[in-house]
Amino acid sequence: MAADKIDTIVSLSKRRGFVYPCSEIYGGQKAAWDYGPLGVELKENIKRQWWRTMVTSRDDIVGLDSSVILAREVWEASGHVEAFVDPLTECTSCHKRYRADHLEEAYEAKRGRLPENGLADITCPNCGNKGTFTEPKMFNGLLQTFLGPTQDESGRAYLRPETAQGIFVNYKAVEQTSRKKPPFGIAQTGKSFRNEITPGNFIFRTREFEQMEMEFFVKPGEDEHWQEYWMQQRWDWYIGLGLNPDNMRFFEHPKEKLSHYSKRTVDIEYRFNFGGTEFSELEGIANRTDYDLRTHSEKSGTDLSYFDQDAGERWFPYVIEPAAGLNRAMLAFLLDAYFEDEAPNAKGKLEKRTVLRLDPRLAPVKAAILPLSRNADLSPKARGLAADLRQYWNCDFDDAGAIGRRYRRQDEIGTPFCITVDFDTLEDDAVTVRSRDTMQQERVSLDQVVGYLAARLPGC
Amino acid sequence: MAADKIDTIVSLSKRRGFVYPCSEIYGGQKAAWDYGPLGVELKENIKRQWWRTMVTSRDDIVGLDSSVILAREVWEASGHVEAFVDPLTECTSCHKRYRADHLEEAYEAKRGRLPENGLADITCPNCGNKGTFTEPKMFNGLLQTFLGPTQDESGRAYLRPETAQGIFVNYKAVEQTSRKKPPFGIAQTGKSFRNEITPGNFIFRTREFEQMEMEFFVKPGEDEHWQEYWMQQRWDWYIGLGLNPDNMRFFEHPKEKLSHYSKRTVDIEYRFNFGGTEFSELEGIANRTDYDLRTHSEKSGTDLSYFDQDAGERWFPYVIEPAAGLNRAMLAFLLDAYFEDEAPNAKGKLEKRTVLRLDPRLAPVKAAILPLSRNADLSPKARGLAADLRQYWNCDFDDAGAIGRRYRRQDEIGTPFCITVDFDTLEDDAVTVRSRDTMQQERVSLDQVVGYLAARLPGC
Repeated sequence: MAADKIDTIVSLSKRRGFVYPCSEIYGGQKAAWDYGPLGVELKENIKRQWWRTMVTSRDDIVGLDSSVILAREVWEASGHVEAFVDPLTECTSCHKRYRADHLEEAYEAKRGRLPENGLADITCPNCGNKGTFTEPKMFNGLLQTFLGPTQDESGRAYLRPETAQGIFVNYKAVEQTSRKKPPFGIAQTGKSFRNEITPGNFIFRTREFEQMEMEFFVKPGEDEHWQEYWMQQRWDWYIGLGLNPDNMRFFEHPKEKLSHYSKRTVDIEYRFNFGGTEFSELEGIANRTDYDLRTHSEKSGTDLSYFDQDAGERWFPYVIEPAAGLNRAMLAFLLDAYFEDEAPNAKGKLEKRTVLRLDPRLAPVKAAILPLSRNADLSPKARGLAADLRQYWNCDFDDAGAIGRRYRRQDEIGTPFCITVDFDTLEDDAVTVRSRDTMQQERVSLDQVVGYLAARLPGC
Repeated sequence: MAADKIDTIVSLSKRRGFVYPCSEIYGGQKAAWDYGPLGVELKENIKRQWWRTMVTSRDDIVGLDSSVILAREVWEASGHVEAFVDPLTECTSCHKRYRADHLEEAYEAKRGRLPENGLADITCPNCGNKGTFTEPKMFNGLLQTFLGPTQDESGRAYLRPETAQGIFVNYKAVEQTSRKKPPFGIAQTGKSFRNEITPGNFIFRTREFEQMEMEFFVKPGEDEHWQEYWMQQRWDWYIGLGLNPDNMRFFEHPKEKLSHYSKRTVDIEYRFNFGGTEFSELEGIANRTDYDLRTHSEKSGTDLSYFDQDAGERWFPYVIEPAAGLNRAMLAFLLDAYFEDEAPNAKGKLEKRTVLRLDPRLAPVKAAILPLSRNADLSPKARGLAADLRQYWNCDFDDAGAIGRRYRRQDEIGTPFCITVDFDTLEDDAVTVRSRDTMQQERVSLDQVVGYLAARLPGC
């Protein structure tokens, strides 16, 4: 995959309405992005597939939607107020700020070894000077705000940096009301916020982002089995939605770099090719042990342990957490679906086309209705068909320009089917359905179109 | 509707897992709520119906998902930094804080006239003293945070108090990439944050809440027509999903109380019966004129006007905004669906039952599979059926307790269909399907169950 593919996707995203720079008319909010008409559908489709796979299609996982602003005590207990810190360094020459660990990782990725003298060996990626970095200072990634009428300590609150803690503090309530017992899971999607020092790489790392997290509570001793299970499940989910496994890999976190709560963490990485870095994290599958439930029990005074009636013993469940980033999943699906090939133009000559080979379940538009020309007879037929199909799927209607060009426009946004309403339609009450991938065309009678598409768009 | 119905719903919500008090194990985050396994499904279903009605089923509205944290300039231009203020007063006797306008409105609702001497006439609802309120001070409702490594002015940012501004600043980008022209709309759902002085009334007024907003851009002069259109559309939406029109009304905002941008605002109100107040706002339909686009044009320097090729003239579109609150819509649907009636018990005797008559499209669980007993033959059949149905709908499986009690549990959460797997099933490969509303039972063969439900759960 070419390294400039990201630039191609950024440009396509803006031009076609997947992703816009945030607040662009005011010069932009640094490294923040808004999702346009196509982007919001694609993102929503990914989320829906995740929810179906993780929650509604299973017997052993239920959903939750907790607040962004939890009680402050939650973040004190979880360790975030104290330990959610990154080493911040600044180049004394150009005053650009970096995360020291990111600089060292980039050095290691390039040279195959860590810098012998730490930051002193590293060249500033911005100004090219060497040995100009300040001693790293620890910097807390929680975004703060103040609730209530006065901006003092009593009102201090934090925006959640992960949805997971909202699950842990609701663990007992969910267990009781849903009458589940381990092994069972609680899943949640939603926005989280981190005061990133170096946001960047398009929608990959931003200060506000959407997570899809699931905490799976299991009996201690069965945790290693369940981690393997969830690694496989999550890997299969991406493959099942069309990601090319050649662009994916597992990355085992080295023991000495694990978070304070983790016994083992394995990432699913995707070949994003950011700068000099080939693979980056798509999702992490962590064994959080009983750290969170135990800590919240101690700090809150509410017993979150589980009494195992079969074994006659009480224990704190271990937690396996597959935590995915929705925005980076969307970027991976876009990159992986992007192809340039050739399609015949009106004269039958092959011309270059751009096509997003998105899984139909993810495609933002499922079908486009294209009347051959703007005409008092064709237009009402075509609009009527569009209105019918819109009861089931998100559809486009486009009657502007040459038909070949309209096909290209739909290919470029990944629309699986284009439906042409032509002058024959007025005679035979049928339309031509063209497939994005095969470019084959089939004549389908008007009253069969819904059934035809339904059979080819399962789960949409 | 009894005034204590709210308490009943709060209690049902907590007991069955619709809504939990936020961070309860730490004593609670004041007036914030988390959505449990059933609540997240109900809330998501309402949102999905809104999105289908407002976006995917229409040709003239597209979606958007903009950031919570926009550039600070957006809120300076929109007037929020200066004008998004409420009058805050404090009782000098008990030190409880109130919004002065809320106190005066409550007085007016009770006595039919405003207090002659303002706050001096009003009794503190908390301590009962009169004339103890301080002179109101204006208090800004924006929640602040700081981006970047230092907590100074350069990093100051605001959490959005409405999703609408994210639509206005993206107006040009959306218009161009989606190739729409007025009249057309941009819709968005998502969280907003307000530093409410007096959050309360369960999920009705909270500091973080979810909005469903649509900005409809029209030619000046056609704005009054479109406001009527959207008032009707939005009214019909609630009715179509089962709200009783007898519990709803339109409320026309008096001219002198309109927001600075509004030419006319009409609320759809629901009979929530909070304290002494019968009706409260469910949704507002505002004519925002060209205020926002014109202001952002001036402040940003980007021309957001529209060149009307047909008329050969340039104008700023007027905006009609139906802005709904997702959380309060959920509360209204819950209140309106709550009934107590009678159902026969195992011996055929009528007993009291609680039933949520939610529209099937909103019901969190579409069907419950209930094997008559835990049995080596029945259980696998029942689990197999549950797994099949879960491919299409969110389903429950419950094999604990008497069958009558299990019916009650499903009625109480609004499950439209209960499916009993009994010993006859082993002979005839059929199950009994019971309807929540009619309590009629029908024998349906196992291979017909999906079709049977699909016909009775359209749009689910």
